[in-house]
Amino acid sequence: MSLIVQKFGGSSVANVEKLKNVAKIITNAKKEGNDVVVVVSAQGDTTDELIEKAKQINENPSKREMDVLLSVGEQITISLLSMLIEKMGFLVVSLTGWQAGFKTNSEHTNAKIIKIDTTRLKSELEMNKIVIVAGFQGVDRQLNITTLGRGGSDTSAVALAASLHADLCKIYTDVDGVYTADPNLVKNAVKLKEISYDEMLELATLGAQVLHNRSVEMAKRYNVNLEVLSSFKNEKGTIVREDVKMEKLLIRGVTKDDYTARISLINVPNETSYVYHVFSLLGKYGINVDLIVQSYENQNKKDISFTVPLNNMELAVKIINENKERLKIQDLEVSSEVSKVSIVGAGMQVNPGVAAKFFEALYNANIKIHMISTSEIKISVIIDKKDSTLAINSIHDAFF
Amino acid sequence: MSLIVQKFGGSSVANVEKLKNVAKIITNAKKEGNDVVVVVSAQGDTTDELIEKAKQINENPSKREMDVLLSVGEQITISLLSMLIEKMGFLVVSLTGWQAGFKTNSEHTNAKIIKIDTTRLKSELEMNKIVIVAGFQGVDRQLNITTLGRGGSDTSAVALAASLHADLCKIYTDVDGVYTADPNLVKNAVKLKEISYDEMLELATLGAQVLHNRSVEMAKRYNVNLEVLSSFKNEKGTIVREDVKMEKLLIRGVTKDDYTARISLINVPNETSYVYHVFSLLGKYGINVDLIVQSYENQNKKDISFTVPLNNMELAVKIINENKERLKIQDLEVSSEVSKVSIVGAGMQVNPGVAAKFFEALYNANIKIHMISTSEIKISVIIDKKDSTLAINSIHDAFF
Repeated sequence: MSLIVQKFGGSSVANVEKLKNVAKIITNAKKEGNDVVVVVSAQGDTTDELIEKAKQINENPSKREMDVLLSVGEQITISLLSMLIEKMGFLVVSLTGWQAGFKTNSEHTNAKIIKIDTTRLKSELEMNKIVIVAGFQGVDRQLNITTLGRGGSDTSAVALAASLHADLCKIYTDVDGVYTADPNLVKNAVKLKEISYDEMLELATLGAQVLHNRSVEMAKRYNVNLEVLSSFKNEKGTIVREDVKMEKLLIRGVTKDDYTARISLINVPNETSYVYHVFSLLGKYGINVDLIVQSYENQNKKDISFTVPLNNMELAVKIINENKERLKIQDLEVSSEVSKVSIVGAGMQVNPGVAAKFFEALYNANIKIHMISTSEIKISVIIDKKDSTLAINSIHDAFF
Repeated sequence: MSLIVQKFGGSSVANVEKLKNVAKIITNAKKEGNDVVVVVSAQGDTTDELIEKAKQINENPSKREMDVLLSVGEQITISLLSMLIEKMGFLVVSLTGWQAGFKTNSEHTNAKIIKIDTTRLKSELEMNKIVIVAGFQGVDRQLNITTLGRGGSDTSAVALAASLHADLCKIYTDVDGVYTADPNLVKNAVKLKEISYDEMLELATLGAQVLHNRSVEMAKRYNVNLEVLSSFKNEKGTIVREDVKMEKLLIRGVTKDDYTARISLINVPNETSYVYHVFSLLGKYGINVDLIVQSYENQNKKDISFTVPLNNMELAVKIINENKERLKIQDLEVSSEVSKVSIVGAGMQVNPGVAAKFFEALYNANIKIHMISTSEIKISVIIDKKDSTLAINSIHDAFF
């Protein structure tokens, strides 16, 4: 007998039909003799509808009250799903975030889980009940309701799996696993049987958003075995776990991110503190800088290029222009017509042929490279957006 | 400075406009220098919509899960109302039933309040905050969410006023007070300045449902001063409090109840245990018997007449017919075309002229009386339904 944590996102529980499908998956796992704990999100667009309700009242509501409002979404799901499972003749109980023992800090709308007191949950499991838990929510020390922000329900599931020492945490989504490339763009894309935490983290940051990084990081820290699979297909997904074969070359996937913009600062002073000044300024406005490349023109001047998320581009340019004199920027180049294309895989650095093959594929497809960045398990390039689909197909063909 | 508890029902908070109106009433009370605690219901039809959602899933859901679902309604109201009050520049905090310390028994969907731990609430008041509390809900000893059933939010408000030793508990509704008769039926009806708990209880049972009896009973037990008033008119309502002038004749109101049915058992045995048998049988099926009158035909036989709520009539008749032989009932008369008309007022028994005046009014209007029942503070008669509006007007004219 195993203890399994299952997590179902908003699209998997959006209506009565989908709830019935989910209830079948849950009760099947129970029938197979497992202890089953289920973490669910708010149904479909519920969260957006609640946000809309709040905006009608107050454009800028306090985050504390926002959390009181938003936590309602998962509470509706847990009760409805429990009613459905009751009807199928199983013992079941729903628990809100606070009932399930989720203790967080007080950072409303973006709280961090501090610990989970699983006393209640374990006693329900001992009574042979299926336990349905509201994801995304908890309480702080003063028992104020908090929510966990983006990726919150995945994080709830992984944290619960860690606390309960579950054998497996199954994340049901609308995709059926992690692919070597986006199957909508690359027809030969292959579903991976397994992938390491680090590779999964790189894929997520590179635009192949299957799991939120926060949940993968937590899974890595507590060594929780994850499975990403579809709630609509009855087949195995992709297992995410610690990879013990880091030395072996395993290219996991090719991915592209079209939602990026490149900004180049031309002919700026070659001073050590310069980079710090620029990026701390952008950071103050909440702008996430991704790839950074600098090239030396001569002893006194250099160019710095970096990418930002596309929706941060205008703000970044505005801030830089406002500080142009202070930052001694002679010229500024901006392009939103770029994409980031990457390959991810363990053991890339100890296999120098990988980079060569990667660049050869781009060369053969006649694709111009604007920037290059590499890490232990990935290589990324910035290319023209119009080339991005051609690029990932060429690279995928070269490796798979 | 006073501590005031204000309660707003579902129709008073049904939409953004109405919430704004309520927020104005609340902040005005705060501006006048009072400590203000507010108890609210779910918005408009929210509770019915949630029940409908549940029915689509499970015709007969567990009451525990029903409570998890229903408690969402008030949680939405408290957060939205708090966001609105924030925007008006006041310090405010929302508290759910469990955050506000409402401890109940485990009778889901119809829980009783055991106690209120007001520690959190008092500390929020000390920080000069307006406190918005979700009515209708609490938690049991195991921290399961419970709801209080019909009249729950009124009861929450009164219980909170009692626990906090509030100076006044203001119940805002869609009527502006307690009248001597239904103003829609009796054009000369007068709004009462004050009324005693007992008189209010009688009026409620007699069909003039302004406050739920449960809340009035609690107000009486803990001596909480209530005011019933309109959230839509800026004028004083009716104060409900202990009446110290019980000896003085004060006819409070004339009321009618059209939702009643009369059942007569004809020629039944004149045995002491007989009445017990009949009414314990009906009680087993949850049928509330109201007026009971019995008349002796002769030494061995008697007739028994009683009234039941109109929607219980069919079931009552079915049960009686099924047990006709065992209960030795020769004949059964049933009428749904009756109404109960009553006057309520303290000191009625020590003022024998009241009954005379009451019956004189009915006689002058040529209204036939089927049954009569009296208590310390009320006289009720069962008459033909077609006469009921004429009856209350005649009686009202006689007394006011």
